Amino acid sequence: MTALFDDRPFREASHRNGFSGNRIARWSEGRDDSSLERALAAPSSRLYLFAGDKVVLRQQDAIPSSVGHIAPSDAALLEAMGADADSVGGRLLPLWTLAEAADQGLDPDTVVLLGVRAGEAVLAGTVPPREERPPHETAIDLRSLAVQEALPPDDMGALAQARSLLLWHAANRFCARCGGPMRMKNGGSSRVCTVCNTEVFPRVDPVVIMLAVDGDRCLMGRQPQFDAGRYSALAGFLEPGETIEDAVRREIKEESGITVGRVRYHSSQVWPFPSSLMIGCHAEALSTEVVRDAAELEDCRWFEREEVAQMLAGTHPEGLTVPPRMAIAWTLIDAFAGREG
Amino acid sequence: MTALFDDRPFREASHRNGFSGNRIARWSEGRDDSSLERALAAPSSRLYLFAGDKVVLRQQDAIPSSVGHIAPSDAALLEAMGADADSVGGRLLPLWTLAEAADQGLDPDTVVLLGVRAGEAVLAGTVPPREERPPHETAIDLRSLAVQEALPPDDMGALAQARSLLLWHAANRFCARCGGPMRMKNGGSSRVCTVCNTEVFPRVDPVVIMLAVDGDRCLMGRQPQFDAGRYSALAGFLEPGETIEDAVRREIKEESGITVGRVRYHSSQVWPFPSSLMIGCHAEALSTEVVRDAAELEDCRWFEREEVAQMLAGTHPEGLTVPPRMAIAWTLIDAFAGREG
Repeated sequence: MTALFDDRPFREASHRNGFSGNRIARWSEGRDDSSLERALAAPSSRLYLFAGDKVVLRQQDAIPSSVGHIAPSDAALLEAMGADADSVGGRLLPLWTLAEAADQGLDPDTVVLLGVRAGEAVLAGTVPPREERPPHETAIDLRSLAVQEALPPDDMGALAQARSLLLWHAANRFCARCGGPMRMKNGGSSRVCTVCNTEVFPRVDPVVIMLAVDGDRCLMGRQPQFDAGRYSALAGFLEPGETIEDAVRREIKEESGITVGRVRYHSSQVWPFPSSLMIGCHAEALSTEVVRDAAELEDCRWFEREEVAQMLAGTHPEGLTVPPRMAIAWTLIDAFAGREG
Repeated sequence: MTALFDDRPFREASHRNGFSGNRIARWSEGRDDSSLERALAAPSSRLYLFAGDKVVLRQQDAIPSSVGHIAPSDAALLEAMGADADSVGGRLLPLWTLAEAADQGLDPDTVVLLGVRAGEAVLAGTVPPREERPPHETAIDLRSLAVQEALPPDDMGALAQARSLLLWHAANRFCARCGGPMRMKNGGSSRVCTVCNTEVFPRVDPVVIMLAVDGDRCLMGRQPQFDAGRYSALAGFLEPGETIEDAVRREIKEESGITVGRVRYHSSQVWPFPSSLMIGCHAEALSTEVVRDAAELEDCRWFEREEVAQMLAGTHPEGLTVPPRMAIAWTLIDAFAGREG
């Protein structure tokens, strides 16, 4: 008899991927419209704030706190990503009290209840973007925060949930069935039409992302908008009427001309841009000749395991790279390379 | 070195699940608005037709055909499901020519291009429901067709794609961002707002469905609307900000109070009611005391492997059952039971 679960220590592959640390209890079933009001009346409630596409953060130097941790000191890189130079190098704090959120100009119509964490209600909302910010305050986009691993995993997971929800509510002001105005329900867990009563729930788009493997080689491509020298796993949206495995085979075929057979699920990732579920797989190549989809990819080719290891280590002689560690593509590529030896 | 893929014959678990046989090449990238027109002008094009919630079918007795195959003769069961008694027992044909579709009253505004199969364009559209149908014509809902395994897998896969797409277009007549009217684009692969140009793509909702396992026992529940004696795997929609594994743990905890640790992906299923991707997993239970969510489940308990085998075989002394073979729940339960011996 084969056991469904072996005795290996529990080290989940999906936990290696960015945004996987969410510890909020959503409590979706027990909610009603008063849940948000009650959370907004509780002094212990805390909010994540977005100004346009950026997370609003405080920087707190050398002050011990149970919230946040020491950010990487790579100030130049963060600055290049659009953050103020004086905002980095310290402890970044992403949570705000209700009073502080009001001072930031919180738009009350945007506020959603994410859930409960450590006994406190956790909410999210949007504030107006600001040209200038006081010292010790900054705003950084979520992807840069993830690349920098600048916040603890539980904050990154909560911010991912927050970003997807805020964008979904903003994009669903009207009923797609009748055109009537919709209102938020149960603190943001759904929206309901004020005319025809149609109820809709937050959308999550499944995306397959996969590394085709041919023995000691894997298939990677580069999109024109990638950083110079960057290659990654192929990916695409799963379409209605497809299993995960069928979507993997179709996407690889469409983008590279490669036929694949067996597909093996590896791990999944929350991808809040705006609201995808990345489903990461390895796929067994049954053909080898690449016929690239020129509309999607600037290049697509096989990479030997040794070359992949150099790309992961940042030691490739021509400076070729793979996505940053927070990306599921990195995890898939690393898992392939790690099979060596 | 451990190989990513072993040498076992390629027998994909997802292919055991209903609706997994779709062979249509979607050709989504290469389409434009003229693709549908051209498909509607080609005499070789074929359509799947839905009348309300039912698939319109011809019955062709004992006439050999490359389309369709012999349906099961369980006329009583099909009749109980709402099909006419005289519609069963023969070969069911789900495809119609353009002229036949016009005779059925095809609504041209609903027609979508599914893709290409064996060199022929495959489309789908809706026709008005009819109280009476001529002999050798019937209409049966898609779930009953799946339970009966009454059509070949490629038709069932195509019908699943068709049903999800037709319902999505019907539910998205207006722009959720601005309330303006939307129009179909590229033969149905997206919709675009005639006012603000927002483009939206067909929605697929990821759902986790999972069997918690505690050694030789698995956890199943029954919803009030299930057939008498029916138990199944627990399931629920994945929410924004969750990995697959996190969603599995949350849903099991919410519905049964059971804490689970390791989660193992098993297979996936297309579920066109209206447009879900069922993601099937086994999960390792870390606790045993069931605290049922009474709002969701009428019962929830552990089942010994032997009892599960009886339920699968239809020999349970109290008549308890599991879902039909086309359901991914069956595949998950069967995989658990099959670990014996």
